Amino acid sequence: MRIAIDMDEVLADPLSKFIKLYHRDYGVPLDLIPEPGNEIYHHVPEHANRKWFDYINEKGFFRDLPLIEGSVEAVKKLQQHHDVYIVSAATEFRNSLEDKMDWLADHFPFITWQNIIFCGDKIVNVDVMIDDRAKNFIGFKGRKLLFSSPHNLLLTDYERVDNWQQVLDKLVGPEL
Amino acid sequence: MRIAIDMDEVLADPLSKFIKLYHRDYGVPLDLIPEPGNEIYHHVPEHANRKWFDYINEKGFFRDLPLIEGSVEAVKKLQQHHDVYIVSAATEFRNSLEDKMDWLADHFPFITWQNIIFCGDKIVNVDVMIDDRAKNFIGFKGRKLLFSSPHNLLLTDYERVDNWQQVLDKLVGPEL
Repeated sequence: MRIAIDMDEVLADPLSKFIKLYHRDYGVPLDLIPEPGNEIYHHVPEHANRKWFDYINEKGFFRDLPLIEGSVEAVKKLQQHHDVYIVSAATEFRNSLEDKMDWLADHFPFITWQNIIFCGDKIVNVDVMIDDRAKNFIGFKGRKLLFSSPHNLLLTDYERVDNWQQVLDKLVGPEL
Repeated sequence: MRIAIDMDEVLADPLSKFIKLYHRDYGVPLDLIPEPGNEIYHHVPEHANRKWFDYINEKGFFRDLPLIEGSVEAVKKLQQHHDVYIVSAATEFRNSLEDKMDWLADHFPFITWQNIIFCGDKIVNVDVMIDDRAKNFIGFKGRKLLFSSPHNLLLTDYERVDNWQQVLDKLVGPEL
């Protein structure tokens, strides 16, 4: 079975980096937890709510993102049972491409270049897609697992996973 | 209809750049035309036949490649009739990613980021794939158009296109 795994807010945590940068520049509290359904820019001063677009286009933004808890071990385990592809909508941000490659090489060295896809539209031929953005499910016929993130918590139309253990429970099952 | 178009030797011409670099470093003639079935490295001194791998990994290699004749106008025309995706196995060469983005922005500015895919395995969900490397057709169920390049001229198992006009003849047809 082929599984496509998104990067941001699924493997990597850009949200905590946004908060740090908005804290530095606009005094947003470091312990901010966005309200369900909100994006980070809903929690910043109005004159700064397009600033995320500058941050994300800076070289280095994606280079040192923290890992989402449990992602490395879970992807390693998934790979023992399935064909795992990392599929990130990275071509939107030209300056993210090298950072994302290098970040993957650091944290997921067991994923080879053959299994990395940087795209726009996620028109990939896979059986399962794990993503936090429902827009990436449009037109996809396979099984969709919506990985929980504050911005998607109000959506009810998708099979949801709150963390990597739940992904393993669904796609690998109990180990004997 | 969705069409996936490869970059190297289909839109861009790395072969002439390889020849230039091998000319500069090893005296290979500038008017070299590889024999059918041969790769460029079959035409260089034996001690230099892994050098292509260094060239291709250098920053800038892909930044200034010449265009394959007729490619810009043809892709523009295809786009009027179909959904065109550029699909390049670029993740093999980390240093190619930005160069390829910038090259596309220069020559194919009408292709937006949504329609650019940098991958390894070409597991894309499209109807037609235009590629010079038959290995990229493995597992692909749609229509395969093998774009002629010296290295593939001996292959007979595929529907072949020798140039961009032939692609238009097949995928757009005569214009009224």
